[in-house]
Amino acid sequence: MDFAPDARSVELAAHARVFLDEHVLPAEPLLDAQLAETPGEWNVRPVVRDLQARARAEGLWNLFLPGEHGAGLSNLQYAPVAEVTGWSPRLAPAAFNCAAPDTGNMEVLHDFGTPAQQEQWLAPLLEARIRSAFCMTEPDVASSDATNIETSIRRDGDHYVITGRKWWSTGAMNPDAAVFIVMGKTDPDADRHRQQSMILVPRDAPGVRIVRPLTVFGYDDRDHGGHAEIAFEDVRVPAENIIGGEGDGFAIAQARLGPGRIHHCMRALGMAERALALAAARANERHAFGRALSEQGVIREWAAEGRIRLEALRLLVLKTAWLMDTVGNRRAMTEIQAIKIAVPRAAQSIIDRAIQVFGGAGVSADTPLAELYAAARCLRIADGPDEVHLSSLGRAELRVGAPR
Amino acid sequence: MDFAPDARSVELAAHARVFLDEHVLPAEPLLDAQLAETPGEWNVRPVVRDLQARARAEGLWNLFLPGEHGAGLSNLQYAPVAEVTGWSPRLAPAAFNCAAPDTGNMEVLHDFGTPAQQEQWLAPLLEARIRSAFCMTEPDVASSDATNIETSIRRDGDHYVITGRKWWSTGAMNPDAAVFIVMGKTDPDADRHRQQSMILVPRDAPGVRIVRPLTVFGYDDRDHGGHAEIAFEDVRVPAENIIGGEGDGFAIAQARLGPGRIHHCMRALGMAERALALAAARANERHAFGRALSEQGVIREWAAEGRIRLEALRLLVLKTAWLMDTVGNRRAMTEIQAIKIAVPRAAQSIIDRAIQVFGGAGVSADTPLAELYAAARCLRIADGPDEVHLSSLGRAELRVGAPR
Amino acid sequence: MDFAPDARSVELAAHARVFLDEHVLPAEPLLDAQLAETPGEWNVRPVVRDLQARARAEGLWNLFLPGEHGAGLSNLQYAPVAEVTGWSPRLAPAAFNCAAPDTGNMEVLHDFGTPAQQEQWLAPLLEARIRSAFCMTEPDVASSDATNIETSIRRDGDHYVITGRKWWSTGAMNPDAAVFIVMGKTDPDADRHRQQSMILVPRDAPGVRIVRPLTVFGYDDRDHGGHAEIAFEDVRVPAENIIGGEGDGFAIAQARLGPGRIHHCMRALGMAERALALAAARANERHAFGRALSEQGVIREWAAEGRIRLEALRLLVLKTAWLMDTVGNRRAMTEIQAIKIAVPRAAQSIIDRAIQVFGGAGVSADTPLAELYAAARCLRIADGPDEVHLSSLGRAELRVGAPR
Amino acid sequence: MDFAPDARSVELAAHARVFLDEHVLPAEPLLDAQLAETPGEWNVRPVVRDLQARARAEGLWNLFLPGEHGAGLSNLQYAPVAEVTGWSPRLAPAAFNCAAPDTGNMEVLHDFGTPAQQEQWLAPLLEARIRSAFCMTEPDVASSDATNIETSIRRDGDHYVITGRKWWSTGAMNPDAAVFIVMGKTDPDADRHRQQSMILVPRDAPGVRIVRPLTVFGYDDRDHGGHAEIAFEDVRVPAENIIGGEGDGFAIAQARLGPGRIHHCMRALGMAERALALAAARANERHAFGRALSEQGVIREWAAEGRIRLEALRLLVLKTAWLMDTVGNRRAMTEIQAIKIAVPRAAQSIIDRAIQVFGGAGVSADTPLAELYAAARCLRIADGPDEVHLSSLGRAELRVGAPR
Repeated sequence: MDFAPDARSVELAAHARVFLDEHVLPAEPLLDAQLAETPGEWNVRPVVRDLQARARAEGLWNLFLPGEHGAGLSNLQYAPVAEVTGWSPRLAPAAFNCAAPDTGNMEVLHDFGTPAQQEQWLAPLLEARIRSAFCMTEPDVASSDATNIETSIRRDGDHYVITGRKWWSTGAMNPDAAVFIVMGKTDPDADRHRQQSMILVPRDAPGVRIVRPLTVFGYDDRDHGGHAEIAFEDVRVPAENIIGGEGDGFAIAQARLGPGRIHHCMRALGMAERALALAAARANERHAFGRALSEQGVIREWAAEGRIRLEALRLLVLKTAWLMDTVGNRRAMTEIQAIKIAVPRAAQSIIDRAIQVFGGAGVSADTPLAELYAAARCLRIADGPDEVHLSSLGRAELRVGAPR
Repeated sequence: MDFAPDARSVELAAHARVFLDEHVLPAEPLLDAQLAETPGEWNVRPVVRDLQARARAEGLWNLFLPGEHGAGLSNLQYAPVAEVTGWSPRLAPAAFNCAAPDTGNMEVLHDFGTPAQQEQWLAPLLEARIRSAFCMTEPDVASSDATNIETSIRRDGDHYVITGRKWWSTGAMNPDAAVFIVMGKTDPDADRHRQQSMILVPRDAPGVRIVRPLTVFGYDDRDHGGHAEIAFEDVRVPAENIIGGEGDGFAIAQARLGPGRIHHCMRALGMAERALALAAARANERHAFGRALSEQGVIREWAAEGRIRLEALRLLVLKTAWLMDTVGNRRAMTEIQAIKIAVPRAAQSIIDRAIQVFGGAGVSADTPLAELYAAARCLRIADGPDEVHLSSLGRAELRVGAPR
Repeated sequence: MDFAPDARSVELAAHARVFLDEHVLPAEPLLDAQLAETPGEWNVRPVVRDLQARARAEGLWNLFLPGEHGAGLSNLQYAPVAEVTGWSPRLAPAAFNCAAPDTGNMEVLHDFGTPAQQEQWLAPLLEARIRSAFCMTEPDVASSDATNIETSIRRDGDHYVITGRKWWSTGAMNPDAAVFIVMGKTDPDADRHRQQSMILVPRDAPGVRIVRPLTVFGYDDRDHGGHAEIAFEDVRVPAENIIGGEGDGFAIAQARLGPGRIHHCMRALGMAERALALAAARANERHAFGRALSEQGVIREWAAEGRIRLEALRLLVLKTAWLMDTVGNRRAMTEIQAIKIAVPRAAQSIIDRAIQVFGGAGVSADTPLAELYAAARCLRIADGPDEVHLSSLGRAELRVGAPR
Repeated sequence: MDFAPDARSVELAAHARVFLDEHVLPAEPLLDAQLAETPGEWNVRPVVRDLQARARAEGLWNLFLPGEHGAGLSNLQYAPVAEVTGWSPRLAPAAFNCAAPDTGNMEVLHDFGTPAQQEQWLAPLLEARIRSAFCMTEPDVASSDATNIETSIRRDGDHYVITGRKWWSTGAMNPDAAVFIVMGKTDPDADRHRQQSMILVPRDAPGVRIVRPLTVFGYDDRDHGGHAEIAFEDVRVPAENIIGGEGDGFAIAQARLGPGRIHHCMRALGMAERALALAAARANERHAFGRALSEQGVIREWAAEGRIRLEALRLLVLKTAWLMDTVGNRRAMTEIQAIKIAVPRAAQSIIDRAIQVFGGAGVSADTPLAELYAAARCLRIADGPDEVHLSSLGRAELRVGAPR
């Protein structure tokens, strides 16, 4: 249970921090400007391309990916770096080619893809030449219950035919998102967790229709490809596009979600830290009723409460990373659920209070707070709502004979 | 302490409810469509004009305004009607000509305006021929402390010269907002609450510069004229544009804020009721893990908690209205502060849980919830942040000899 | 919906307040002294007898009981008086002969008793010559679900034979508690809510065995007869001791619980008011780090939050009383559940913060706070735990077609 | 940052756990019986003596004390053992001679005592032949602000004369508490943190008067010597009884409080774990409305929330211990404050919910929950109320240039 970041991790995090301060944070206004110039477009903006080139040149690239294809960091090593990227979720993860959903998709291809699949899709993703999307959630059912999934993947000779509707396919509005990993049912009569399969669907396959972009609290998240609703209308792909085999979909999803969830938590810590830092600066500079806000007891209490939550939860994230590294994602499931619930909630609360410190500026675009809030709020829904995880954790806790 | 709505109030609220169900709620998609068609414009959309014409014909018009110029309702009579309008804050208040900030501005003109000011500005506002804005908050200071205000209103012969910068001037992006009520200092050396004055500034006065629109979370609130930052650069207006006299600004602001705050609370109750109703419908129709969400204990608890809070707070709003009607706004200050703190917070919490019930749909534009959330959230900042009111209430409560 | 106390209520509450200030609060140390002198006894102490004599002489007697046997107050009229008694729950309710469980038992006898039952038990209870207990909760089952009750009431010729075990029979340690109202099953095979009956069991009936006193946190509540566990071992009573008829037990319990619950809430408001008043006085008199506690922002915020909750919840209690008076207890069930949940919780929270203001004195016997806390905490369990009521309220709220 | 307990710690904690299960938990009813037999006495009961003998024989003795006088464990090594003792705070800490306030007093003597002081007082304390008390808090002032202390320690020739009043002197009702460490002012005009000194006062010194025992939520805590109010009336002790030197009192108090606070937190984790375990068992065995409580969503959510908080906070406690071991108590002050605030609060909340799961049994003496609750609640007051620590933490967090 040694959570101390090793030398490589310390060095990378420090490097990332410098990169953040020198290149990423100053580039945020530039991103806004480029977005304002081309309001109808969803592709990656030049400022991101420039940051990517620089980051790659500096070795800050694919840090999320264990193994020889990526930087080879353990989860524990990656944690401090990922937290740094959370300070600027619109730019930093993309700059380092560590942005969801591409990270999870690369992991799937890395862990379960055939050599041909890897050559076709993983290689360009690792170089950020293309983007990808993950098509799991459906508009018509509660998708946290995988047995609800209605999209069908039907075998037809050498092909599979995909029919269904997905939404919240993050990044899919970006025309560079060349491939979609689609979850559907190959056998609705199989065991509960063997009904589902995953399949690779090229964006340009006939029958793929981008229905519309979705918004999140008014934001279209255009800077990272938005969130799409997609109709799959009798889309036909070669049988070799299946990932793993028929019935492996649920297991692959679980494997993908573990790292995905902890990455979100690592970044959420950074989001909350930035909110705390912004609030602290503001509280020192604003005065009301004869004192700086930082001298008001209530503001101090908020700052203390935020600090306490972050310190405790960061340790839980690190422990979870360490468990994933040492006993595997599956046996770290309980901890993953715990941080999946607790960290976004803490971030949401801390950002909300930072907004309150800023007043009107806090809800506007003059600070990153409102957009950070929206992002943190969504984490309580994405990858399964809090309530599903709480119920699962609680059931385990109440189980007769649960270890004490 | 009789809070029962009288016959007129019951009838008006029922009428408003029918109007809401038959005309307003069905018009929401139309508003979205019209907004989408003309993305660069800030003026009132045709759907609003149509609703206004119909509402006015039906007598649902200027219901907020006591006295002969308006419907002549008491605060208590108005409360149930205003709550109905909260179900559709983007359309219903405007449809009934009961939308902030015009309501508050009309009250100011009604209560403190000269006959000439009333003829020039109140008359067209009462007919919705023009819109208005209220310019109080400033970007550079904590404006909840009125002594911080930096805008100057300097007498120069028969004129006043206004210099300063305001923001969160709601509605001011709308080119039809023909007049701004501006708060500034005429005498920085006067007593704390006699430094400020209010003055009428026509939109087209030289030196008035609309700097930019502000966003709230990701929303630009284009449907009701947005929120503007405005520079007043040596703006010269006739001396008779002053409202009341020099030094009356703080008192007028206080007089304006009482009704403004309770109206916000009345509408916030309606916002929360709509969220509860939407969540209930969704919880009955969605199934996960073998049961409707409405059968899950946690969801039931949320619904119960929301209902309890709303029932208790509605009564406090009604009591406050009754006090304003019977002992005056000034002596109802404590209660106004209490609801100003408690109601938006309750609405925020109830809407947040409704979002959680909906999952992804809740944060998107497919439900009104995310936008309602943003509106409720802002109420904890607008007209003074919660913390200022809590501190003031707490000081009174702890005062030696406070009545028990 | 007129909640204003009428003249009689105003006068009685003012009278009760004077009585509280002049006689009850000063008698609290005397009660402690008398309890300390006779540690092994459970009967009513002389100080209570003296207060009763005085209160009865002044007309502050049996105020809880509607109809000709009592003061004839409506629930709405009684509310302000009952709140006053909550300031000193150990003495004031008993002084006015308005203490649970006697109040509920008198109501049962009043509403459902035969003339003979009333003569034998109601008459002396109305004069405080005897005390009584209510035997409903059982140690071995979750008694909030009435179908769980295991005590049997078996007809045997002209008698009933009662067998079972009860606990939390408040007041039953007092040897003056001459009669117990016992809930048991006469027909386990009847409909869910027709299985139970209520029967009068004299304390001295053979087979009644007081097993032991229970404590609440560290308190034995000796001042009002404690809380007993009681074994009923083949206790034989005349058949005419049944209240109403066989199968009426559940309905009678429901009828009894409505007033019982609202009385608890009325008193809980008074408990919380006293805590707020004590905290305010302390906050003005204690200094730390250069300022009175009352000047600390966090303390002010607590005071404000407490005040807001109490003001809103008092109105909900009054509305509930008014509903009970006008449409009947049954149709006020939803509101009764709401206040049953919300008021004790608010009182608990307010008292907890008052304790924190006092520090060590707050948890000790030097202030009434710790004992008030224990009492408020128990109200979240007594008469059904919060969770049962929340679930019931939530189910109603989520019901398809629930009125909005 | 390696928090993993080493082999010795693992072994000791496992040993302690076995000892707890086999000897301590079964002895709790025996303690109750012995207390009931001798209600007027405050001394250590035979059951504790027996457990002490056995624990000492097994090597579970003085584990809290670093260095050669004790077990020589680091804080990190001690943490898992201390947590085990928290399962039975009335018996286990005393059994292992690891109970407050003796632990802190032994640390003071160990770290700051002269050889003579150590021989006279530390030696018998290490063997549990005597007990001790710590006299810091005063009834008349807010003692969290050390400048408020009113007790005077006046030099008079070869003696010091102590005059003042202390309370919450835990353990001091026990006649075996042979020595008191008293904090007072030797120089009220010195610098803020050099005014105070500490001095050893034998219980039998003339002028020491035990005024009365204090209660905590009705408990007198007789099992570990209660809490005394003590008057020091011109108590004269030899000058060599001073600890350190004049003016060292504040620094010694700070040194003492660091370990004291973390020990409380370690035990509080164990208290909360026991509450969770009891609640889980109860939730599985109780049924209401057709299901075990453990199948109710709300109960599951509680269990999950409790687990998450404990897992995160345990890590923060371990990190704090590790910091104390590696960089010293002084530089771990921020973390000590953080856990001092967060852990008791979490324990209080978890125990409160466990009480709710148990209903009436939860507030009674049939479960340890109510007494655990009272103990956890007091931890939010003892050693400085939460608010003082929150304010201090918040100030540090908001400091300009605080590290991020």
